[in-house]
Amino acid sequence: MTSYDGFLSPLGRNLHESVLRKMGQVIASRTGDLISFAAGYPDPTGFPWDDFRAISSELLSGKDGSVLQYGPTRGYRPLLESILGVLDARGITADLSQVMTTSGSQQGLDLTARVLIAPGDVVLVEVPTYTGAIAAFRNAQCRLVGVKQDADGINIEELDAVCLRERAGGSRVNLLYLVPNFQNPAGILLSREKRARLLEWAERRNVLIIEDDPYGDLYFEDVATAGETRPLKADDRNGRVIYLSTFSKTLAPGFRVAWVAAPAPIVERFDTAKQSMDLMCGILDQRVVHESIVRGVLARQAAPLRELYRKRRDVMEQTLREQFGDRLTWIQPRGGFFLWAKLPDGYECEPLLAKAMEQGVIFVIGSAFCVDGSGHDRMRLSFSWPTADQIHEGARRLAAAMASAPTPAGRT
Amino acid sequence: MTSYDGFLSPLGRNLHESVLRKMGQVIASRTGDLISFAAGYPDPTGFPWDDFRAISSELLSGKDGSVLQYGPTRGYRPLLESILGVLDARGITADLSQVMTTSGSQQGLDLTARVLIAPGDVVLVEVPTYTGAIAAFRNAQCRLVGVKQDADGINIEELDAVCLRERAGGSRVNLLYLVPNFQNPAGILLSREKRARLLEWAERRNVLIIEDDPYGDLYFEDVATAGETRPLKADDRNGRVIYLSTFSKTLAPGFRVAWVAAPAPIVERFDTAKQSMDLMCGILDQRVVHESIVRGVLARQAAPLRELYRKRRDVMEQTLREQFGDRLTWIQPRGGFFLWAKLPDGYECEPLLAKAMEQGVIFVIGSAFCVDGSGHDRMRLSFSWPTADQIHEGARRLAAAMASAPTPAGRT
Repeated sequence: MTSYDGFLSPLGRNLHESVLRKMGQVIASRTGDLISFAAGYPDPTGFPWDDFRAISSELLSGKDGSVLQYGPTRGYRPLLESILGVLDARGITADLSQVMTTSGSQQGLDLTARVLIAPGDVVLVEVPTYTGAIAAFRNAQCRLVGVKQDADGINIEELDAVCLRERAGGSRVNLLYLVPNFQNPAGILLSREKRARLLEWAERRNVLIIEDDPYGDLYFEDVATAGETRPLKADDRNGRVIYLSTFSKTLAPGFRVAWVAAPAPIVERFDTAKQSMDLMCGILDQRVVHESIVRGVLARQAAPLRELYRKRRDVMEQTLREQFGDRLTWIQPRGGFFLWAKLPDGYECEPLLAKAMEQGVIFVIGSAFCVDGSGHDRMRLSFSWPTADQIHEGARRLAAAMASAPTPAGRT
Repeated sequence: MTSYDGFLSPLGRNLHESVLRKMGQVIASRTGDLISFAAGYPDPTGFPWDDFRAISSELLSGKDGSVLQYGPTRGYRPLLESILGVLDARGITADLSQVMTTSGSQQGLDLTARVLIAPGDVVLVEVPTYTGAIAAFRNAQCRLVGVKQDADGINIEELDAVCLRERAGGSRVNLLYLVPNFQNPAGILLSREKRARLLEWAERRNVLIIEDDPYGDLYFEDVATAGETRPLKADDRNGRVIYLSTFSKTLAPGFRVAWVAAPAPIVERFDTAKQSMDLMCGILDQRVVHESIVRGVLARQAAPLRELYRKRRDVMEQTLREQFGDRLTWIQPRGGFFLWAKLPDGYECEPLLAKAMEQGVIFVIGSAFCVDGSGHDRMRLSFSWPTADQIHEGARRLAAAMASAPTPAGRT
């Protein structure tokens, strides 16, 4: 048989796998009863099934051939116009030259990687940060340098120091990647004051900000307001922000319709790159999403989803307290899907995960999100997908796993 | 305002645009009556609308949340199993480790570019060849070297000579890209004898073949048989072939569901790369395609589509003869969507296209498909999308354009 190693490109030899995707494979391959705190999946009972069915049925009547035809790479134009409305509701003013659709926000990250990252560049990210961004950026052969987060978001003093240090060392530092709203995995909401300072910092240091905002609509009304989720892009006077968002959490991830709002010269380059990547996003998907916006489905989704996920968070926080007392600690998530828990001193997430899998519960190890080698004392627990009963049972299993995991005293 | 040139990666600065995509933008932006022989679009009247509507409606009943949820990167498993059946019908034996879905075959080309092409590599292609492959491969910073085609497909003597010459010059030559069935744009069907010789050649020269097969099912029964379209992959004993195919021409392009069949180690790398590119193909799209296979929709499509496009070819050939006599020449397409016409001596396609657009008809210039600088005396005329009436009127306009185009006598 042929050996293929010699055929691989440098990238082909050094591809970075997303840890989350790997966990997904574990879930899929495991038979029997497994409770997942790992997958950051939305709850499908929250999808507007009836609306989708009615819309698809109308679209597929056959009257309009373009519903299933090839279309423009940038996106179905009426959808792009609807997206301008969605942006406007978030305080962002843009025109058609500044938006395009992407096949999930993951493609927005990949476009960023290909068009804006040169091999050897330094890209600044939060510690912890989203694994999908880590994989996409690393595949562009850059070096990721982490900046710590405080309870109100990225530490700007450290950010500036790291940027200057890396530049002094001769590195090109052009990009900062941020998830300001209910960060994945830390669940942190970046403060308004820091948002303003980051825009000023980006201008001063000549850096572009990649603002990834999948969860902004999903703030929990007991502890957060819409105003606190206002994107940096809304106040981006100098074209410093490339804004990524998606319908995956508010409509459904299966459609793979997300978008970029960015300065026109960037969108133009992204458009050209996407042409040779996949020509376009699925057009029926784009049409369904467009109709969902136009008919008010998207707008009607937000409030019940905020309520749904807030309740899940409440169940998870309460249950973890019941099972662990104060041995687990975390910053309360004020929105989004994730709780970022700190293990008791001396425990490490990797051996704990092994024990947890024996008990029939999984989470994502904290170290998967940390580009600086930290995070071994953390786990990401997702409360978006499991039901209240599953959260109870999963927390019980997690406690049993911890009871049998290697203890600090057992370490040498 | 910020200037963005300094932020671009080397790829971002040198992106290759697909000429076909550009033509698509011309069509979309032009108002009024324009006849397109440019776009290689399937005819939407041939899409199985009723089946799609019934299938979508059932899938979107809400009973099965996974219909709109995140799923495995490789693809929805029952769909992958269905694809094994489609492959089997084409003579290709594969297992689940050897297939994956891609977001259109364009993504299969992009995966090939990223995983298998190193900067500076030479990739061998036919002259002419598909512009989407040219763009994707060039974006991997390789050098494309063309090999001429005879009426029965690529010239193997020249192929071998070119391969040896490039290797002697120090280049890495690992890949040959082919569209064996009703080639885009030349419409040529690669002979069975040459298919066998190419497999032997790939083994002897240690080359992998990228076999792109969107049109194999669309042979015209007056002049071709299913047996003549048997993929090289069907006789690939040594794992030399990476086979790309799609449902875009037989179901509908709007779904963006295509697939790769390749040796398992290649599929594994492609899977990992796709994780950070777009996570997965649209899952509702995958489910609709899967059901279309299972319910026999796909199988029922083939015969009427062969008939539909054969008739269109007949109309185009006859009409071109009426309008141009023997001033235009071509090899008769025995399947697929395209007629590759040679202009009369001295005419060039670029000024002719300018005149044609004035007349309200467009085609794709031949030079867009030729990596060796040739093709200026050719045009690609697509007969798949326009109706018979439009073909008549388009040919009339084309003749008027030629009458007003710069003539050989007018050149200095």
